[in-house]
Amino acid sequence: MFEVQYRRILEQWLLEDLGVEGDVTSKHLGLGGVEAAASIVAREPGVVAGLKFVEPLFKILDSACKVETRVEEGSDFESGASLLLLTGPATALLGGERTALNLLSRMFGIATRVNYLVNQLEGFSTRLLPTRKTLPGLRLFDKYAAEVGGASRHRYGLNDAIMIKDNHVALSGQFDSILESARESAGHMLIIEVECDTLEQLKHILAADRSMLKRMPRTRGVDVVLLDNMRPGELAEAVSLLKSHPRVILSEASGGIRGDNLREIASTGVDFISMGALTHSVTPIDLGLDFLVS
Amino acid sequence: MFEVQYRRILEQWLLEDLGVEGDVTSKHLGLGGVEAAASIVAREPGVVAGLKFVEPLFKILDSACKVETRVEEGSDFESGASLLLLTGPATALLGGERTALNLLSRMFGIATRVNYLVNQLEGFSTRLLPTRKTLPGLRLFDKYAAEVGGASRHRYGLNDAIMIKDNHVALSGQFDSILESARESAGHMLIIEVECDTLEQLKHILAADRSMLKRMPRTRGVDVVLLDNMRPGELAEAVSLLKSHPRVILSEASGGIRGDNLREIASTGVDFISMGALTHSVTPIDLGLDFLVS
Amino acid sequence: MFEVQYRRILEQWLLEDLGVEGDVTSKHLGLGGVEAAASIVAREPGVVAGLKFVEPLFKILDSACKVETRVEEGSDFESGASLLLLTGPATALLGGERTALNLLSRMFGIATRVNYLVNQLEGFSTRLLPTRKTLPGLRLFDKYAAEVGGASRHRYGLNDAIMIKDNHVALSGQFDSILESARESAGHMLIIEVECDTLEQLKHILAADRSMLKRMPRTRGVDVVLLDNMRPGELAEAVSLLKSHPRVILSEASGGIRGDNLREIASTGVDFISMGALTHSVTPIDLGLDFLVS
Amino acid sequence: MFEVQYRRILEQWLLEDLGVEGDVTSKHLGLGGVEAAASIVAREPGVVAGLKFVEPLFKILDSACKVETRVEEGSDFESGASLLLLTGPATALLGGERTALNLLSRMFGIATRVNYLVNQLEGFSTRLLPTRKTLPGLRLFDKYAAEVGGASRHRYGLNDAIMIKDNHVALSGQFDSILESARESAGHMLIIEVECDTLEQLKHILAADRSMLKRMPRTRGVDVVLLDNMRPGELAEAVSLLKSHPRVILSEASGGIRGDNLREIASTGVDFISMGALTHSVTPIDLGLDFLVS
Amino acid sequence: MFEVQYRRILEQWLLEDLGVEGDVTSKHLGLGGVEAAASIVAREPGVVAGLKFVEPLFKILDSACKVETRVEEGSDFESGASLLLLTGPATALLGGERTALNLLSRMFGIATRVNYLVNQLEGFSTRLLPTRKTLPGLRLFDKYAAEVGGASRHRYGLNDAIMIKDNHVALSGQFDSILESARESAGHMLIIEVECDTLEQLKHILAADRSMLKRMPRTRGVDVVLLDNMRPGELAEAVSLLKSHPRVILSEASGGIRGDNLREIASTGVDFISMGALTHSVTPIDLGLDFLVS
Amino acid sequence: MFEVQYRRILEQWLLEDLGVEGDVTSKHLGLGGVEAAASIVAREPGVVAGLKFVEPLFKILDSACKVETRVEEGSDFESGASLLLLTGPATALLGGERTALNLLSRMFGIATRVNYLVNQLEGFSTRLLPTRKTLPGLRLFDKYAAEVGGASRHRYGLNDAIMIKDNHVALSGQFDSILESARESAGHMLIIEVECDTLEQLKHILAADRSMLKRMPRTRGVDVVLLDNMRPGELAEAVSLLKSHPRVILSEASGGIRGDNLREIASTGVDFISMGALTHSVTPIDLGLDFLVS
Repeated sequence: MFEVQYRRILEQWLLEDLGVEGDVTSKHLGLGGVEAAASIVAREPGVVAGLKFVEPLFKILDSACKVETRVEEGSDFESGASLLLLTGPATALLGGERTALNLLSRMFGIATRVNYLVNQLEGFSTRLLPTRKTLPGLRLFDKYAAEVGGASRHRYGLNDAIMIKDNHVALSGQFDSILESARESAGHMLIIEVECDTLEQLKHILAADRSMLKRMPRTRGVDVVLLDNMRPGELAEAVSLLKSHPRVILSEASGGIRGDNLREIASTGVDFISMGALTHSVTPIDLGLDFLVS
Repeated sequence: MFEVQYRRILEQWLLEDLGVEGDVTSKHLGLGGVEAAASIVAREPGVVAGLKFVEPLFKILDSACKVETRVEEGSDFESGASLLLLTGPATALLGGERTALNLLSRMFGIATRVNYLVNQLEGFSTRLLPTRKTLPGLRLFDKYAAEVGGASRHRYGLNDAIMIKDNHVALSGQFDSILESARESAGHMLIIEVECDTLEQLKHILAADRSMLKRMPRTRGVDVVLLDNMRPGELAEAVSLLKSHPRVILSEASGGIRGDNLREIASTGVDFISMGALTHSVTPIDLGLDFLVS
Repeated sequence: MFEVQYRRILEQWLLEDLGVEGDVTSKHLGLGGVEAAASIVAREPGVVAGLKFVEPLFKILDSACKVETRVEEGSDFESGASLLLLTGPATALLGGERTALNLLSRMFGIATRVNYLVNQLEGFSTRLLPTRKTLPGLRLFDKYAAEVGGASRHRYGLNDAIMIKDNHVALSGQFDSILESARESAGHMLIIEVECDTLEQLKHILAADRSMLKRMPRTRGVDVVLLDNMRPGELAEAVSLLKSHPRVILSEASGGIRGDNLREIASTGVDFISMGALTHSVTPIDLGLDFLVS
Repeated sequence: MFEVQYRRILEQWLLEDLGVEGDVTSKHLGLGGVEAAASIVAREPGVVAGLKFVEPLFKILDSACKVETRVEEGSDFESGASLLLLTGPATALLGGERTALNLLSRMFGIATRVNYLVNQLEGFSTRLLPTRKTLPGLRLFDKYAAEVGGASRHRYGLNDAIMIKDNHVALSGQFDSILESARESAGHMLIIEVECDTLEQLKHILAADRSMLKRMPRTRGVDVVLLDNMRPGELAEAVSLLKSHPRVILSEASGGIRGDNLREIASTGVDFISMGALTHSVTPIDLGLDFLVS
Repeated sequence: MFEVQYRRILEQWLLEDLGVEGDVTSKHLGLGGVEAAASIVAREPGVVAGLKFVEPLFKILDSACKVETRVEEGSDFESGASLLLLTGPATALLGGERTALNLLSRMFGIATRVNYLVNQLEGFSTRLLPTRKTLPGLRLFDKYAAEVGGASRHRYGLNDAIMIKDNHVALSGQFDSILESARESAGHMLIIEVECDTLEQLKHILAADRSMLKRMPRTRGVDVVLLDNMRPGELAEAVSLLKSHPRVILSEASGGIRGDNLREIASTGVDFISMGALTHSVTPIDLGLDFLVS
Repeated sequence: MFEVQYRRILEQWLLEDLGVEGDVTSKHLGLGGVEAAASIVAREPGVVAGLKFVEPLFKILDSACKVETRVEEGSDFESGASLLLLTGPATALLGGERTALNLLSRMFGIATRVNYLVNQLEGFSTRLLPTRKTLPGLRLFDKYAAEVGGASRHRYGLNDAIMIKDNHVALSGQFDSILESARESAGHMLIIEVECDTLEQLKHILAADRSMLKRMPRTRGVDVVLLDNMRPGELAEAVSLLKSHPRVILSEASGGIRGDNLREIASTGVDFISMGALTHSVTPIDLGLDFLVS
């Protein structure tokens, strides 16, 4: 990831907090010219994700800011751990403090939760996936945190793969013909994933894929099926149907999956489990910026 | 609030999901020219906040989109309620669906939680406050949702009021002289809030204010004290100290306040309670965009 | 495609031609208030692509501009054909004239050439592909024109698929292990295409894919091979190797392909042919904006 | 030219290719931390133009990138020449490669063709001009390349000079009165160029200028005439008319001028020849970025 | 002038006054939904310039705003005159009030002063010119107001003409060779103006131009001389030297010119007088937005 | 103040003067590569404000520019004083010269005038205030200059405090109920200032505040009254009424205040005097950029 991909975003975040006039506290307390040092300290245990954005963030405020990172992205930390040392003009440290903590406590929260769930999956080949249920403007950061936490990669946006849901079918017409024309139109560089809620629908999809395979053998047909809101029993049956299909179609389970039924779902043999909650219901990790006052 | 204040933000959110190429599913399923209707439906009960952003959001995608809002901002809804009817080109409805739902489910979540807590405060004059612990880029939206839910207004940014915390004191020197020079420098249009953790500190602040009152009678001195992480007993004592102060200094309690001790805190007589969790730990309301297929 | 995806680009293009002061000819000839009508006329035959950008372009200058398109995207036209009627303030028509023609003559040129080549491919299942050799800032427009002309879809950007070239291998180490870890890391939503220049390399790739298939049967392995700069004989052999591979890996030929050897290349059975020249060496179609003076 | 004039453009170009997520190949091959060196190598002979944009382009991606230019803007090179050495993080070199080559191969193409044509003009005082037929968004780059190639300067935009064409006359009324009021309104800092297609029109223009000279002796009147689509014989006659005019009015020939009739046109004595093809029909120079693998 | 040339500027101006949160007065007084009407009223006499920006400005805030202009750009008004009627949501009228008045009172001030001075010049052919001494960000508006007031057009920016001052000469070397190479390099589309402070310098310039005329007869040579800080006697002599020059070189006087010596300067016969004070020392016209309360 | 708060503004200012093509004088005189030094010299005495923007401004053009400031913000200087030494590429010095001088001469003008007036107020506790009558786009700079000159701080924008004027009352209804609901709605972090023109109105406001004090003792009620266009006698009476009010309400006088009645107004005991003229009617300080030619 290059800074040019997110620098404007960081700038807008800082400006959102600074307003037109800037930090009136630093200004009227006369903190100009004061140097300071502070460290980002964990108030509870968790997993690191996003520390690499801290340096560019504070350097936008003042290029004299220096950052010394003490932990690697993806590593665990205990409560009380000092994760990063920041030095520079006091006005810059105070000016970026809230923006940095607001971002990091979310990103750490995502990575920590994902990491926990990925550990739950140990022993299974099933991979965990974040969705597009990220907060507006935070796609890159939410996805990054989930990946650091150990999640696999899902669509970054609507431009990323074809995902045929019931709404699409309802709006377009016959599934079979849609599928073939989509594959025809999309070419060889776009994944096609198809959502289904029932085993009947899955069978329909597989039949359509088989017939496409006949007419268009040199295509990839359906790449993935999204098995939505299926109970474990159904899922297992779906997986078994997929395994007997003449070509590899990957399976993704979604809907109603929580920490406490994750292993049960994984035990059905699905290839992927996607959970919107990874990014839409985030419990932040409590972090503080502790100034080092001599 | 004027659209010019957030239109660019909405555009960036949409572009974040569309990428350079746009929605490849609609494109390769050939949905161009198809008209559709859909409604935003609640999958659980809650409080409405942010529906007014739906129309500008979809109109950015296609000016032919029409929105009919069925509930007022701030009103309650039951699970299953249809909150808003959206009509327009299918490509636009599908193109904005996720962005709209990602935003609204958060905003509804904030308003719902705030509303619950404000109701808890019934019978007390204490007001609930959101903080600057909003997500980067979402300040305006998080604050709006909290206000719709019934919260009172706190700082929108660093430009909004002077907030003197221990870090500031540690970086600047003697509190008493800082305070007076800050008031001198800040003029008559900026609130000064001072944080304290103990009754000792509070007494120090009040003494400083009293001495400022003597030397600078035609100023507002300290406007608010932030009573941070005090136990209810301390808080009550703090409130009582404040009540005997020669001029009105408002009190704000923060730190360690949850739904289950909110009334206890309020019963100490503090004027305001601020809770970072209102915006940093949001449980989204589950919403869907149901297409109306004839 | 939504206007929000390209509106800023159109604005920048217009401002590039207007400068800070604007069109000094219209200003000093006093054309303010004069209404005009003009039509875009072809000075040579070709294929239409991009007329849909004309209306938003001129409406940026003046919302009173009206556009009546007389031909469909993708259709043929003869020299002298009137393709679009434009009415509105003379200042707007003159202000957008050059930008519109500069864009359209290129897009028409791309579509016309692609269309010719696609017709050359009649009788073969081989599909023609544009590459990322588009002009900076014109990706969306160049790709669109190529698609309207009948080309299939290739990568829109570096975010679109994994493309492993020799440089990547040289920089990363052993191909076999790279491939597996890339597939592992990339998950199920990214295509992997691997470039090779010789049959030896192709055999190596296929062997690696086979061994991945064994260890990781539930993945898609290599999706596409790019057969770069191979002679027709080699290509045919490559295609035959691919056909005997246990799973479908698509083939894309590139390098040194011109109009006059296109059918020969296609006759080798390759699935796709990509040509940088489709977008990097464009012969524009000569178009004019003829004012209708009564 | 200052970087502030084009930096945003370079950023947008890079983002166009990176998309929201960035280069997934580098990411999933784990190229982070790998250093690389590469050189831009010519695959055919030509003239250099635009190498100065390479450093700012790659520095946007990573400030650690270093560029060593081996040839001067405007100089010739042979096929196989190494023109520029680039070192830095492999991810940055791969991330900017296509954008850089897409730009340079066009700019080199323009400079090479212009240089060839300017050499053709040797012995004549006639100067070659690029027009506003540049590609949208590339005005600055196309013009720069043409100037490096040896072309003279023409209008950079609509704000640059008054150019009265038949459309303007048709829309405004009587030419004579238009001309005087335009000169009156425009003041002393804007060039007026008038287009004509026939000797009759030229005589009309010269008569109007003469009468303006009488009424407004302290103005520059018409500065340039654009002799559009005239045959060499007519051009020579036009030049002779201009030479007998009481003040210097420069002549510019345009329309139907190609490499093979350029000298014939120049031999008519016209001061300038403008050719849209210099920038609208560019044959790119084939360039590659060769990685130096030890 | 097209709205696209200034719309972003208007948006930024409004946002500068609205901050992130917007107008807290309207918000907390509950003015949402209230309709209002107001008129822009002159508190002193003057000349109108810039009313055409009022409608786009308020429409940015709310597209329901309507503007009815009662006077023409450039016309006189008396104290008390109602110049424009504005109707729309009260929040929009209050939200744009200050920005609109801040702009208009300056623009009116410029136009009023320029108009007065242009009237002073009656009977002379000398034209009045604004300079580049406009306020940053207001170039377009300051120039427009000056032109509406009756001034002639001078450079809009550094890209607009070549202006050789003593600094340039000191930095470049010999004037004579500079001049010829500048004319050679600049081509036929750029005016060259040369500054001089003394008659000696002027003679030097004229000699250089004469010698250029000999070597390069088909160029325009020097177009204008800027006679800086010359006393009227010198100016008259300079004008006389210019009149005897073999080609028309226009003269512009600048420096130390005020309302009270303007006619004296004009009487020397200079073609143009430029005054920085027209835009750098503006006395605003007092305007108010009077709400029409029934 | 951080550079991120104004950098884009500086960039836009420079681009406004550079246009698309840039400085054609430097370009065609071949100044590329020439180094230069220059100093900003005062042509008349004044007070310094804004020199800190000079370095970022020129560094945008060329990072090799160096600035050595010789005077402190807020200090006096004599005519002829050299205030700042600037070295770097001649093209950059010439490219930023006008923008820098246009800005500084205004900012110095504001600071100089404010400083003079603040000195006039010596012996009084009354403070001088700038208003929102700044020029569009220059809010930050105008306010900064006024503060450097010694003014106190007033609202930076509509988001900064509640200011209830007659228009607001006319649009909202009864003043008393408006006031209470505004205070209720606004919370504890917004100042409320109320405008009044007569002693009657002031008494009304004070009565309303008293009754609010009774019903809502834990609020700040009205914070400031704006005494608009009152004669000194009325002002003195108003001040006396305010002094007998049970809580501190600060007073601000505005309207018709000039240098020559400032002390008379201050002698009434008002806390603040605001003057629009500080920023709307600025007499610039004459500054030059003198090149140091050896």
